[in-house]
Amino acid sequence: MLVTPPYLMFLGDVGDQLAAKTAHGIVDWRPEWCLGQRRLPGCKADLGITEMSIAEAAAKGARTLIVGVANAGGVLPDHWTAEIVAAIEAGMDVASGLHTRLGSKPEIREAAARHGRQLLDVRHSDQRFDTGKGTKRPGLRLLTVGTDCSVGKKYTALALERGMRARGMDADFRATGQTGVFISGRGVAIDAVVADFISGAVEWICPAAAETHWDLVEGQGSLFHPSFAGVSLGLLHGAQPDAFVVCHEPTRTTMRGVKHPLPGIDDVIDLTIRCGSLTNPGIRPVGIAINTEKLGEDEARALIAETAGRHKLPATDPIRFGVESIIDRVLAEFPQSANGKAR
Amino acid sequence: MLVTPPYLMFLGDVGDQLAAKTAHGIVDWRPEWCLGQRRLPGCKADLGITEMSIAEAAAKGARTLIVGVANAGGVLPDHWTAEIVAAIEAGMDVASGLHTRLGSKPEIREAAARHGRQLLDVRHSDQRFDTGKGTKRPGLRLLTVGTDCSVGKKYTALALERGMRARGMDADFRATGQTGVFISGRGVAIDAVVADFISGAVEWICPAAAETHWDLVEGQGSLFHPSFAGVSLGLLHGAQPDAFVVCHEPTRTTMRGVKHPLPGIDDVIDLTIRCGSLTNPGIRPVGIAINTEKLGEDEARALIAETAGRHKLPATDPIRFGVESIIDRVLAEFPQSANGKAR
Repeated sequence: MLVTPPYLMFLGDVGDQLAAKTAHGIVDWRPEWCLGQRRLPGCKADLGITEMSIAEAAAKGARTLIVGVANAGGVLPDHWTAEIVAAIEAGMDVASGLHTRLGSKPEIREAAARHGRQLLDVRHSDQRFDTGKGTKRPGLRLLTVGTDCSVGKKYTALALERGMRARGMDADFRATGQTGVFISGRGVAIDAVVADFISGAVEWICPAAAETHWDLVEGQGSLFHPSFAGVSLGLLHGAQPDAFVVCHEPTRTTMRGVKHPLPGIDDVIDLTIRCGSLTNPGIRPVGIAINTEKLGEDEARALIAETAGRHKLPATDPIRFGVESIIDRVLAEFPQSANGKAR
Repeated sequence: MLVTPPYLMFLGDVGDQLAAKTAHGIVDWRPEWCLGQRRLPGCKADLGITEMSIAEAAAKGARTLIVGVANAGGVLPDHWTAEIVAAIEAGMDVASGLHTRLGSKPEIREAAARHGRQLLDVRHSDQRFDTGKGTKRPGLRLLTVGTDCSVGKKYTALALERGMRARGMDADFRATGQTGVFISGRGVAIDAVVADFISGAVEWICPAAAETHWDLVEGQGSLFHPSFAGVSLGLLHGAQPDAFVVCHEPTRTTMRGVKHPLPGIDDVIDLTIRCGSLTNPGIRPVGIAINTEKLGEDEARALIAETAGRHKLPATDPIRFGVESIIDRVLAEFPQSANGKAR
């Protein structure tokens, strides 16, 4: 799926900031792509960027209207339709993270057909993929894996992209979830793909590349999560990573949505190497990313030092302390990637 | 998905026996459900059962017309439509294993709506599932796993069902692939489910049951297959098997459709226990099923004896030598299941 920037961010009239979490993520990571926001009367979310009408955004060159909000049930309210149709008539594609497909509204479907614009439902996957082949491709890949869902895998991959690029390395974030697709303008929400094509879709997401190029692949779920491990394994096999970073949230006692305890970081390292070897025998860990949001500064530093020592790997909280130690390890293990094409 | 027997088997005018492989499988395992076959002029496949018109089948009580053939591309030819519509008008549901959805033909869709009949596209999954919960359910479950795809996992599970029932045990085959769904009249083609719901769909397929009841769950793919391991892992977690049988084809040199070598039986046992423990800590192997079709009798017996000795498990070729040794092991390990409700 390809989403063309720059974007006009549409927030509708959602009732709180949390409903615009996806939109906030896009503005955080790609402020240069977000020309402005369009809100309807009563909207309680605010991205803190320029308010803009459809016509103004079109005049400034907006290519896609992003419906980056999540309201109850993921439904597209009828009273948003007119605004979406206006964006199409002004020449924009529309990309949505809602469950309701854009094309299920006849006015939207017909406007898109009439004007030759794309309707992109990021939560659904209509794209056809081949089944995965597992053949080793050129290029370097790093996958963020987790002890659980929602432990910072996307954030860690994006932080590595930013940090590597700042050092002149050739690196691209590769999205496997809906927010990531908006942030990078391409990718696939891998959990929406038909099961037979998980690894094939991932092979499409991070294709063959230059030997010095890093794809930083957004992980999903956990090999130890009883609901989603199948997705995580297909993603691991398709990404065939050379390197991986384990992401962890230390205060969680059970895995998200189920009653299972979290696995140890050691267990995750071990099973990731074991399963990942199938498509990349050279797979190795290069760091641990700990989300210390709920810990005080001293406690966070102590936990990170202890974790790093125990696993003999760089450990950090990417948000609090950055990812430089992990990039140092990447460069030590893969020195050829210091010479990637500077961006 | 529920497919209601008895069936009228529709073969269209396919060009050879191989195209009717699915239909043959149904007749082999459920002869009592297959009232007859309906073929169009020029059909080269023959199930060896009574030829029957739509009207005759309806008069004998046929509830579902099974389109159990695979022609090039899985397409539904236009000249089959009239016969399918006639079956609907005679009161039958229609179930198809083709890629083309039955409802994509307006005449078929409208006839089904008019007569209130079901159109079942076994290769597609429109059913909604919850995500898997991984919570231990009552009842006993056995999963057939493989060193590769197409090594006899369905056949082994069906042979175990037949053998266990013959001993008065309470056992049901649980289908996870299209032929299996036709054979058992229920189930889900698990590789067609959206990735997020693999284990949840399997939890639906083999739900809570009596403590002495065996579900014999049809395996798919292999944890070591780079195209399909995600499906296999979600299936393992959702089935939460107490016992598993490893299925193997000893003459194969690379995994189906890819260039990877086959894993060892030991590797499969080890990784299945390791990953399966997440949802059933008591998981254990109870046998090895070897497809010796390409070996002579002496060679087959020698290989089976050697395999059994090496892994300290019953080994057999289910087709050639039956599955009694595996059932003996099941009863030794799970003596409570000897007292299942006799059928």
